[in-house]
Amino acid sequence: MQRIEQRACFGGTQEVWVHRSAVLDCDMRFAVYLPPQAKARRLPVLYWLSGLTCTEQNFITKAGAQRYAAEHGVILVAPDTSPRGDDVADADGYDLGKGAGFYLNATQSPWSSHYRMYDYVVDELPALIEANFPANEARAVSGHSMGGHGALIVALKNPGRYRSVSAFSPIVAPMRVPWGEKAFSAYLGADREAWKAWDASELVATAGERLPLLIDQGEADEFLDSQLKPEWLREACERTGHPLRLQLRPGYDHSYYFMASFIGEHIAHHAAALRG
Amino acid sequence: MQRIEQRACFGGTQEVWVHRSAVLDCDMRFAVYLPPQAKARRLPVLYWLSGLTCTEQNFITKAGAQRYAAEHGVILVAPDTSPRGDDVADADGYDLGKGAGFYLNATQSPWSSHYRMYDYVVDELPALIEANFPANEARAVSGHSMGGHGALIVALKNPGRYRSVSAFSPIVAPMRVPWGEKAFSAYLGADREAWKAWDASELVATAGERLPLLIDQGEADEFLDSQLKPEWLREACERTGHPLRLQLRPGYDHSYYFMASFIGEHIAHHAAALRG
Repeated sequence: MQRIEQRACFGGTQEVWVHRSAVLDCDMRFAVYLPPQAKARRLPVLYWLSGLTCTEQNFITKAGAQRYAAEHGVILVAPDTSPRGDDVADADGYDLGKGAGFYLNATQSPWSSHYRMYDYVVDELPALIEANFPANEARAVSGHSMGGHGALIVALKNPGRYRSVSAFSPIVAPMRVPWGEKAFSAYLGADREAWKAWDASELVATAGERLPLLIDQGEADEFLDSQLKPEWLREACERTGHPLRLQLRPGYDHSYYFMASFIGEHIAHHAAALRG
Repeated sequence: MQRIEQRACFGGTQEVWVHRSAVLDCDMRFAVYLPPQAKARRLPVLYWLSGLTCTEQNFITKAGAQRYAAEHGVILVAPDTSPRGDDVADADGYDLGKGAGFYLNATQSPWSSHYRMYDYVVDELPALIEANFPANEARAVSGHSMGGHGALIVALKNPGRYRSVSAFSPIVAPMRVPWGEKAFSAYLGADREAWKAWDASELVATAGERLPLLIDQGEADEFLDSQLKPEWLREACERTGHPLRLQLRPGYDHSYYFMASFIGEHIAHHAAALRG
């Protein structure tokens, strides 16, 4: 494991590390922000899962999250969005292959040999963080778009593992929208029954705990009606009694300008749960 | 003049416009952040001048400044860093030509036909802003690196025009460092006497008003000893009695992580002066 970036930021340090991932069988980068409190004690961790086309860089350069992490004493960890490297399968288009791992474990060739972002994000990366950084075992998870889908499914599939979960502009029902149908067909094959294990709007029915879902969604989001469909998650939550706070924000789009505007509220939400 | 980007951000809108600049004889982009208060009344404007290689995008995507502008009710305007277009002279290297206008008026061929960023920033752009946006005539100026140099010289050369000035990691004595010597030789010619009109450490001796200079400088800045040399401005200010607050920040480098950490303090400083 090697540190390739280290920058002072809001009294702490924004770092980027590269390591060999056993789960993904490739070198991976992740970003970690250590707030000033990390010099004195172990802190809880908020995992941030980014969206299509992103790397570990987008969130750390554009969201302005470090200020709030420093205020609340929370470590931020932002992994890359897919396996990387010359021997990793890829596809044309931004929505499949590299940069589009969808936080699942692929079962279909050629994807299954590297595309195991679910195991990476849920198990391998937290173990690495908790062993090598001043992190305790209090975890929260959030993300944007494809990463919002990722945050929802990893929380819903792992009762007790996360103290809180939130998402910006998430793909809440990937089985029923073009981005998800394309990715799930490739990564998981034609059997749509197998897709349900990776779809938040399905998982709320069987979730092992009623962890409240906090979602912010811009009403001027260019993908709202075609890919995001937050009302489908709302219906599923109402049907199953799963707690959801869905905040629709007039005028906001799908960009980091939206996330920057509300990331402070999300970090405060996670910090309260992580302290609890 | 045409709006090419408009995004909701912290209750206001982050916009990017393109217009034909008469001074620069080319199409130019600029970014403008209108905080929520701009819906109700005219507001003061903080002009932000970016550094080498930047466009109007860097500051608006990475500095996290909109939050503070929304808090204080200040419009932010961030121009591009040089003239642009196929018929604009350029050079090899990131530190001359496009992306490296140095906020001066070039006198030498082939630069003099377009490279007049000083006139653009001091006159043409503010006139455009004050005519087309809900801006009043209270102006402040700040910038980073080459743009910190720009902020210092436009304030020192125009008594009464700016209520306040600040800079991050500025080139304070371009005549005496490699970046400045290269640019001034090309844009202004061999006569070093003519360079003094564009060098902050020279201009403090003749400044028509004692506008205090606020400067933040990271002590781990990779360009500190070779290009920035804040102590040369401090010596000039001490010699001439010009007020300077030079804040050296241990551990911080030349990046936007540094600026993001302290831009809130700078905007509060400008907002106080702009209200006054």
